[in-house]
Amino acid sequence: MDIIEDLRCIVGDAHVLTGKDAAFFGRDWTGAYEGTPLCAVRPGSTDEVAEVVKAAAAAGIAVVPVAGNTGLMGGTHAPGRIALSLERMNRVREIRPQARLAVVEAGVVLSQLHDAADQHGLVFPLTFGARGSARIGGVLGTNAGGSNVLRYGNTRSLCLGIEVVLPSGEVMDLMTELMKDNSGYDLRDLFIGAEGTLGIVTAAVMRLYAKPAAYATAMVAVPDLGDALDLLNTLQTATGGAVEAFEYMPRNYIDAHLAHDPAAKTPFARQYDHNIMVEIGATAPRDAEVAEDGTVPVQAQLEQALAHMIEDGRVLDAHVARSEAERRAIWARREIAGELTVAGGHSVITDVSVPLDRVAEFLDRAERAIAARDPDARSMVVSHLGDGNIHLTIWPTDHSEAQYDAMMEIVEEIVLDLRGSFSAEHGIGLGKRGSMARRKDAVAVAVMKQIKAALDPQGIMNPGKVLPD
Amino acid sequence: MDIIEDLRCIVGDAHVLTGKDAAFFGRDWTGAYEGTPLCAVRPGSTDEVAEVVKAAAAAGIAVVPVAGNTGLMGGTHAPGRIALSLERMNRVREIRPQARLAVVEAGVVLSQLHDAADQHGLVFPLTFGARGSARIGGVLGTNAGGSNVLRYGNTRSLCLGIEVVLPSGEVMDLMTELMKDNSGYDLRDLFIGAEGTLGIVTAAVMRLYAKPAAYATAMVAVPDLGDALDLLNTLQTATGGAVEAFEYMPRNYIDAHLAHDPAAKTPFARQYDHNIMVEIGATAPRDAEVAEDGTVPVQAQLEQALAHMIEDGRVLDAHVARSEAERRAIWARREIAGELTVAGGHSVITDVSVPLDRVAEFLDRAERAIAARDPDARSMVVSHLGDGNIHLTIWPTDHSEAQYDAMMEIVEEIVLDLRGSFSAEHGIGLGKRGSMARRKDAVAVAVMKQIKAALDPQGIMNPGKVLPD
Repeated sequence: MDIIEDLRCIVGDAHVLTGKDAAFFGRDWTGAYEGTPLCAVRPGSTDEVAEVVKAAAAAGIAVVPVAGNTGLMGGTHAPGRIALSLERMNRVREIRPQARLAVVEAGVVLSQLHDAADQHGLVFPLTFGARGSARIGGVLGTNAGGSNVLRYGNTRSLCLGIEVVLPSGEVMDLMTELMKDNSGYDLRDLFIGAEGTLGIVTAAVMRLYAKPAAYATAMVAVPDLGDALDLLNTLQTATGGAVEAFEYMPRNYIDAHLAHDPAAKTPFARQYDHNIMVEIGATAPRDAEVAEDGTVPVQAQLEQALAHMIEDGRVLDAHVARSEAERRAIWARREIAGELTVAGGHSVITDVSVPLDRVAEFLDRAERAIAARDPDARSMVVSHLGDGNIHLTIWPTDHSEAQYDAMMEIVEEIVLDLRGSFSAEHGIGLGKRGSMARRKDAVAVAVMKQIKAALDPQGIMNPGKVLPD
Repeated sequence: MDIIEDLRCIVGDAHVLTGKDAAFFGRDWTGAYEGTPLCAVRPGSTDEVAEVVKAAAAAGIAVVPVAGNTGLMGGTHAPGRIALSLERMNRVREIRPQARLAVVEAGVVLSQLHDAADQHGLVFPLTFGARGSARIGGVLGTNAGGSNVLRYGNTRSLCLGIEVVLPSGEVMDLMTELMKDNSGYDLRDLFIGAEGTLGIVTAAVMRLYAKPAAYATAMVAVPDLGDALDLLNTLQTATGGAVEAFEYMPRNYIDAHLAHDPAAKTPFARQYDHNIMVEIGATAPRDAEVAEDGTVPVQAQLEQALAHMIEDGRVLDAHVARSEAERRAIWARREIAGELTVAGGHSVITDVSVPLDRVAEFLDRAERAIAARDPDARSMVVSHLGDGNIHLTIWPTDHSEAQYDAMMEIVEEIVLDLRGSFSAEHGIGLGKRGSMARRKDAVAVAVMKQIKAALDPQGIMNPGKVLPD
């Protein structure tokens, strides 16, 4: 085809992949979305991205930007389309420690940015299980969340500037490094989270933070979720808001882990219903100075607070990590969530958020409603409890599409009733378009469509994603 | 006129003002923008706002939303138009202390929200001189900044949800209370900062924070701006990032204050060139417990840090407030900035930001360039130094428009060279449209215009603002 030749001219023969060579782009990692792209193209620069987009527009063939391809909602599904891979644009262009920022290309892997910041004693705080494969372009495209949103915000809060190739092939330069910039409409935040439907983010300025001088990380068992909120508020007050992660893993999650991995261990000698992983990051030096006996103030503080709550009966059991290896083991249990979800086979994957004080009510109502519909359905919960974000995965016994849809609707009804969101951090992609149509304010959806039509009149940019028909 | 009658039917006779009754809406507080509106209308509810917009659209008359009318850029200029005042929609609908949020109408005065939060031991951290008059609608419309952006971010960071009346008169419900919500394009942040050109924000969900249990507030004199950055970094490290305000007032600012107010005092017995106001907010209880001798740990910490820096020669003089009255006096000196700007007569008001480590270079280059053009021009600087935001006001000796324009261009050229922004926190309104045309990425401006045309095809919503022709 002519377009293939055009693309080869732009990026070089070696970087236009077809057939088996493009297999990576024909399937998402959950296995839920399959479809062979016309080809995959790997531009090496912003100019090449722009040329590819222009050639595709001229040929009337849609472009689907692909970064790490670790999404859960099918946002990179590209059957018969051009999969535009950002993998070669993988340079950390600059780390400016004094200004606490990194200038990166969109193909930089998340863990690569973690390492680059670490070399300067800084952190890029965004983190989640797929950090070894996910790339900045996808992180920005989906406004990714993860486990440290509680303290640092989501991707949008961590980004100062972006560069975007528009559907017209023009390059928009919003690469500001400023904390304050009110020069017109906030286009940056519009393109972040648009999942490549308005343009392709090719580079970004990301914020870095002082690396906590010490962490205190613990597993804690509580009687119920009300006590968990108590625990969070107590620790936030005691530390002046230094809680970095507050993750909920109920018994069904621990069971799924044990079933999946023969080497997996329970958090405590006996099993509890409600387990919390908490991490506190101490930035003030006096909280991190290791004493001669090896104690660290922030860890001692956490132990003391937990001991008080055990006396009160608000905490049943607790274990504070005493080494980096112990800390890593606690995190590993949490970060295997994605794998556990996929390993269980085709499921209803939900990614909802509700106000913090309604999480218990949500879980209780959802459990009862699922059981009423399908008494033998299996479900698993893992939650960024600190920001009300719950991942409830359901495996119905009846594998009909109708049953999957019904389960999704059951969950959404409860979420809507609690004024929550049906999409907290995974985005919409293909998988949640039905939910967008059913649950999102119709006026807002109409405005989104007006914006899409205005910026991409030809519908060339990742069409069919995010917005319902 | 028919439209006046229509409006009276919608909001009641008492709430459609014309002639002298509408004088407030014919002039901004700086006096730079004058123009009599067709009328001012004061709807009492979101439904009434929607009806007013529909009536205006039917009559083909533009609507200019007005909140506190304290802006500096002429964003509420409404000659021959309908000034839509939000002043009657002034209810704090709800404070939810556990969830740390407030649900407010757009006419709520900023200080009213401060008071409402305070009653629950919480703070709404956004603050600036006009807080007794500015209203939430304007704060959101301009994405207002102020003195606490360093710690809490600007208005956008403090807002969870909004309700908007669109140019069509439809009401868009984005009143989410969630920390994580990725359900489609980020319309909230698009409407925030759009200065009423895309729609009228009628209500919002704003974030509240734990009130610092104690403040340490000081005036500090430093040898130069490099030492000021040193001071900021030293204090951020020592406190784990608890610096709430870091404001720069050079000698020309102190002089302007002395000239304006006979009761004004210099910060120190002798005058220094470089004065900093710093405030630290202690949220961890142990930093705020008042000892028997009256000392407060956070204040003692600050004094100790400053004493060290005086020994090193990095600080010349310092005074830590010992009472709330002393703290208030330090703040009052900073908050009179707007008054000093207006009192000096017609001036070139700039509101620029540059990367933190380029502020000294900016000021040095600007001073020389201004003197080269007009050796007797007077200028005054005040700066939210902690986020690189500088307000440089210039009073040229030659009062021609050409001279004002030339001064603005001189400043903008330097800002652009340092990769800064010509508009940090005041917005664009009418006053900075020329700068938008000259300095903003042309591709970005084109995208903004596409969005404006798509959402407001009739051009009914605050036309002629923000976007250049």
